[in-house]
Amino acid sequence: MSSQAHDDELPDFTIVGCGLAGALMACYLGRAGHRVVLYEKRADPRKAGAFEGRSINLALSTRGIHALREVGLADEVLKSAIPMRGRMIHDERGALSYQPYGKDESQAINSVSRGGLNVTLLDAAERLPNVRVVFQHRCQDIDLETNTLRFAAGQDEETVVVRARSVIGADGAYSALRERMQHLGRFDYSQEFLGHGYKELTIPAAEGGGFRMERNALHIWPRGHYMMIALPNVDGTFTCTLFWPFEGPSGFDALTTDEAVRRHFETHFPDAVPHLPALIEEYRRNPVGSLMTVRCRPWRVTDKLVLLGDACHAVVPFFGQGMNCAFEDCAVLNECLARHPGDRAAAFEAYEWKRKENADALAGLCVENFYEMRDHVASASFLLKKKLSLLLYRLFPNAYVPLYNMVTFTRIPYAEAVRRAAAQERALKLALGLGLAAGTAALFALLHRYS
Amino acid sequence: MSSQAHDDELPDFTIVGCGLAGALMACYLGRAGHRVVLYEKRADPRKAGAFEGRSINLALSTRGIHALREVGLADEVLKSAIPMRGRMIHDERGALSYQPYGKDESQAINSVSRGGLNVTLLDAAERLPNVRVVFQHRCQDIDLETNTLRFAAGQDEETVVVRARSVIGADGAYSALRERMQHLGRFDYSQEFLGHGYKELTIPAAEGGGFRMERNALHIWPRGHYMMIALPNVDGTFTCTLFWPFEGPSGFDALTTDEAVRRHFETHFPDAVPHLPALIEEYRRNPVGSLMTVRCRPWRVTDKLVLLGDACHAVVPFFGQGMNCAFEDCAVLNECLARHPGDRAAAFEAYEWKRKENADALAGLCVENFYEMRDHVASASFLLKKKLSLLLYRLFPNAYVPLYNMVTFTRIPYAEAVRRAAAQERALKLALGLGLAAGTAALFALLHRYS
Repeated sequence: MSSQAHDDELPDFTIVGCGLAGALMACYLGRAGHRVVLYEKRADPRKAGAFEGRSINLALSTRGIHALREVGLADEVLKSAIPMRGRMIHDERGALSYQPYGKDESQAINSVSRGGLNVTLLDAAERLPNVRVVFQHRCQDIDLETNTLRFAAGQDEETVVVRARSVIGADGAYSALRERMQHLGRFDYSQEFLGHGYKELTIPAAEGGGFRMERNALHIWPRGHYMMIALPNVDGTFTCTLFWPFEGPSGFDALTTDEAVRRHFETHFPDAVPHLPALIEEYRRNPVGSLMTVRCRPWRVTDKLVLLGDACHAVVPFFGQGMNCAFEDCAVLNECLARHPGDRAAAFEAYEWKRKENADALAGLCVENFYEMRDHVASASFLLKKKLSLLLYRLFPNAYVPLYNMVTFTRIPYAEAVRRAAAQERALKLALGLGLAAGTAALFALLHRYS
Repeated sequence: MSSQAHDDELPDFTIVGCGLAGALMACYLGRAGHRVVLYEKRADPRKAGAFEGRSINLALSTRGIHALREVGLADEVLKSAIPMRGRMIHDERGALSYQPYGKDESQAINSVSRGGLNVTLLDAAERLPNVRVVFQHRCQDIDLETNTLRFAAGQDEETVVVRARSVIGADGAYSALRERMQHLGRFDYSQEFLGHGYKELTIPAAEGGGFRMERNALHIWPRGHYMMIALPNVDGTFTCTLFWPFEGPSGFDALTTDEAVRRHFETHFPDAVPHLPALIEEYRRNPVGSLMTVRCRPWRVTDKLVLLGDACHAVVPFFGQGMNCAFEDCAVLNECLARHPGDRAAAFEAYEWKRKENADALAGLCVENFYEMRDHVASASFLLKKKLSLLLYRLFPNAYVPLYNMVTFTRIPYAEAVRRAAAQERALKLALGLGLAAGTAALFALLHRYS
């Protein structure tokens, strides 16, 4: 059991969690001249291999790229990313249809490797002389009276006690720091699970290298109550994710025998089966993850503690925005700290004020997009609506931006994007109504003339 | 550290928490012939004095009375209760107006002492030879693999480990057992606080005994964003509860000096001030409690653990239903256990299935009723609506029952009561619309005749 003592020896910021958000925040703070220590529960991924238990690739888009650019890492990250310019829909017979995301080729989301990006961020943080990273320290508790963190360190889980000036909780959806806050008075908290879980499978590269399917697309097999998606990786593989219900005939709880799994795939994902040589083996081996939305308030305790990313607003992955939103948190927190240089409590308050309604808006959008992806993405009326929407966008790019595009390709705050989309929808309905009325009037006039 | 060993020595049910719900459940189970052990964190209230930290009196109504009747305690409890037949509204000048709750004098809610009722239930439980109560055992954790409970016992907080067949979690709004379930996968949970807190004050009995205000009423001082209420006690006193916001000029955080408190009362509760001789002293001494709604799902783990009352559905106190709903839980759980004698997992599942939607419906009603009580209860249009509603009820007692009366004076499940109230509302609007149309038609006919 060890402990630090004097206040002037304390780092300016102690970050708990060295995933994507924590590592990026360390880059921001380190570049702003603060002394930063990061604690990470896992071993150094550069020595121990990839991060475990999390999705393998992620879709990086405008908000995330902006934050990476601010710390000088955007170009490096984009170099090993694969742009996905639209959705490739696979129907039950294996027929394909393509929906572009943007108004032109420049609007793409980028498939990046979680592990690779995390290493890039860690390397960048550690290059800063005032940033230090400590691995294999699992945060167990915080005493908010004295702002003392308790860790279980190393393989022996030795207790290590560390005092902190300000703690940044980037310890993820199952945050220990947030759990501590839950015991404070008047802490609003909710965790809500989808009835669906997820499991990852791999489509290997083609023989002799290269991709077995269109590389610059996000592939979707929408099947009503369940679906599969696939994102490309730089090595020519795709990572597939099954989003299936736990219960019911097409659910994980029912599909347990090799035979049932194979039959299910051959019936519902026939064109994918030839690309999944290790299907049964991977299906057996890979775990089923659950999908949780977390909301809470407040996100901070005076100048002692502030939460970031999944720790305060975990979302389900159907808008590809979890990481992008967390990176935007880092950018906003950095901005608020710069605006209130002498007053961290004020900075943390301003940060929460700016982010909370946007995180709530995103959480709702992510659940809605799940229903869109699995149910509607393949329907004719949905495709028509999408086409019309993109057409309007091309015709009136300043007046009409589809919600998906505002969320993915702009930095308009999420809540404002939702409000703008609703206003656009109303205006469109009015225009259609007026058009209909004008048409009807014209028809009557014609009839009158010839009657 | 002690431990129990053999399965056949284990009690049939281990109840954690010996508040109102836990003690009543013990009566039900004991009477049904089960061996029951109850663990309570506090000392025996019959030796140590009243239960602390909770409201002093409660409104017992039809659902609660039904459950007490099933265990043979209703008459005894009602003997020391004070019927409240309506709301007595105190306006800012001290003028009174009275709103009856029911269609006649027989419909009343009953002010009972929490402490007294708890002792009655404990006594009844301990009279059963197969029920044992253990005090000063604070539940800290449950291991759901082995169904082992860990307690901190006595003043030395000695660790006591106890195995259980089936655990019933009646450990209240801050349930340790529910918190353990929160760490299982796919446990939906939310805790939500009102921006208002509460503080209790006492109106003593009149000199020479007797009540200083109307005894058979629930007194309300509605003031828009805040209010005070008072319930009578058998000793001639009233327990007042302030429901004030934490923040803002009329909030607990602002009203801290004796002078400010006195001025606030003299301005806004002038007729109460003469009845509150110890106002300042009590205001200073008594704590401010917070008001939380808890929702969760599931309420159970196989046949090992099931939650009851506040532990799975804490509500805010504005419908006087928290205890009544918890007692109804006990009645339903008892019924489900009787229907599935060999299969506790099925009984617990049936119980959750029957109660969850009703608990959710009640949670919503309780928050709505807060806004009704503090904002509308004094308005002319609200009074008119209430009068009209009660008039309809008297005229068509089988067809129209106001929502308040369904909740308070029937055992119609809460969710069904909400649906029926909505249907009644629609029918009423239709009837009013038809009446208006008929009236307009008649008017036109008249005008036509005389034009």
